[in-house]
Amino acid sequence: MNEDAIIRKLRRHAPLIGDDCAVVPAPHGQDLLFTTDFSIEGVHFTQESRPEQIGRRAVARSLSDIAAMGGKPLYCLVSLALGRWTDRRWMNGFYRGVNQLLRETKTRLAGGDISHAPQLVCDVMLCGSVGSGKALRRSGAKVGDSIYVSGPLGGWRHKPEIVPRLDIGRKLIGKATSCMDISDGLALDLHRLSIASGVAAEIDSVPLLEGASLEQALHDGEDYELLYTAHPERRVPGIRIGTIRKGKPGMLRFRGKTLAPIGYDHFQ
Amino acid sequence: MNEDAIIRKLRRHAPLIGDDCAVVPAPHGQDLLFTTDFSIEGVHFTQESRPEQIGRRAVARSLSDIAAMGGKPLYCLVSLALGRWTDRRWMNGFYRGVNQLLRETKTRLAGGDISHAPQLVCDVMLCGSVGSGKALRRSGAKVGDSIYVSGPLGGWRHKPEIVPRLDIGRKLIGKATSCMDISDGLALDLHRLSIASGVAAEIDSVPLLEGASLEQALHDGEDYELLYTAHPERRVPGIRIGTIRKGKPGMLRFRGKTLAPIGYDHFQ
Repeated sequence: MNEDAIIRKLRRHAPLIGDDCAVVPAPHGQDLLFTTDFSIEGVHFTQESRPEQIGRRAVARSLSDIAAMGGKPLYCLVSLALGRWTDRRWMNGFYRGVNQLLRETKTRLAGGDISHAPQLVCDVMLCGSVGSGKALRRSGAKVGDSIYVSGPLGGWRHKPEIVPRLDIGRKLIGKATSCMDISDGLALDLHRLSIASGVAAEIDSVPLLEGASLEQALHDGEDYELLYTAHPERRVPGIRIGTIRKGKPGMLRFRGKTLAPIGYDHFQ
Repeated sequence: MNEDAIIRKLRRHAPLIGDDCAVVPAPHGQDLLFTTDFSIEGVHFTQESRPEQIGRRAVARSLSDIAAMGGKPLYCLVSLALGRWTDRRWMNGFYRGVNQLLRETKTRLAGGDISHAPQLVCDVMLCGSVGSGKALRRSGAKVGDSIYVSGPLGGWRHKPEIVPRLDIGRKLIGKATSCMDISDGLALDLHRLSIASGVAAEIDSVPLLEGASLEQALHDGEDYELLYTAHPERRVPGIRIGTIRKGKPGMLRFRGKTLAPIGYDHFQ
């Protein structure tokens, strides 16, 4: 297949593709949300991974960022630098995974770029919307707030499928004081939320995925559950795991002991 | 540097970075434009290329897509998968190039992703805006229209710096019947425009960059000039190169002979 043939094929699923840019109406009276996430061979998946799953996960990671802000996903750009080993069957499987999740979440594929590279690289950009000034942020947690997660944790080993928590994110608008998604492990991500909010945090208990250890739930990556805080008397969905405390911003405690903010770091 | 340290560094230039998504107001009564372009080590540049130039070109290629639709650039996401050989000095140079062009074009850096890969991969996403329903398209060229380019051609060898033609693009709104940017060579891109418009095209003359051959002007990539059509009596900026003809969609003629739609193809 040459480049134009690949693009003709993609257009069947994405009528917005064809000009130099996708053209879509701006949502009225809303804020736009932008996020982008790489999925890279040898880092996020291998040649042995199922192409449907690579495609689905690549989109799910960006959708999870939209969920973390309480947003609604609108448009998606999928860029692919194909490796030498990728064939038509792989492409079909990959886009099957992408399109399935986009359909489920009512997100439109609006374009992308196609190139080649020694290793396969995918970059997914998502544009979403949220009521003007309503986006959930990392920075609003207050001393005394309860800390919640949207589901049990344990890292990617125990979680074959990412389910972006879009419904829960939207329900938290106007209720949660802060929110983010857990992509690099509870400890590191709660540390980040606490730094952004200028507070410390204490964890009492951690809900575990079946078969996962506490260590994995605290420090493994790719959970993609939401982590959020709310006034203790505010009713919110999810599982309560602790309390925001006064203290050095970013300091974590777990059952009375200091907890190191160790998680998945792309550079260590 | 670990991931959080890199992100802290980037925030100095991009205050929108810090939450799971960038949050920006949607432009009122406008259409949004989305485009994304890879810049890949070994495909678009080498380790020997100057990092400032890699950064500047990576952004320029996406800005050129916005120009081709008559749009105004608003927000930019820059994702980087760093190779092992990239150090702090390279990063500084790269972002210097990125930020310089973003400043010149009044575009805000709104985020991105940071990861690592065996080869360096950059993906730039741009969001722009254009008056509702006003975007320039590839598909509106009419038989009898004149064909124009925004400047002399000759491909990347003769053009060290890409200048995105944002001003010309905006001036063409309401005047040009079709428009795109020349990224893969005049012949291949005019072929694409002609297919999209359901017409044939005849080229009379091609303006050459200093030192460039006609062959390079027709078939080399990375010119990033605009290619557009307008009614012959309509006054538009640029250099007239030919006429839209009735015929098999995509058929090209140059000085009376058939011209093959050969240009830069990422898959050949």
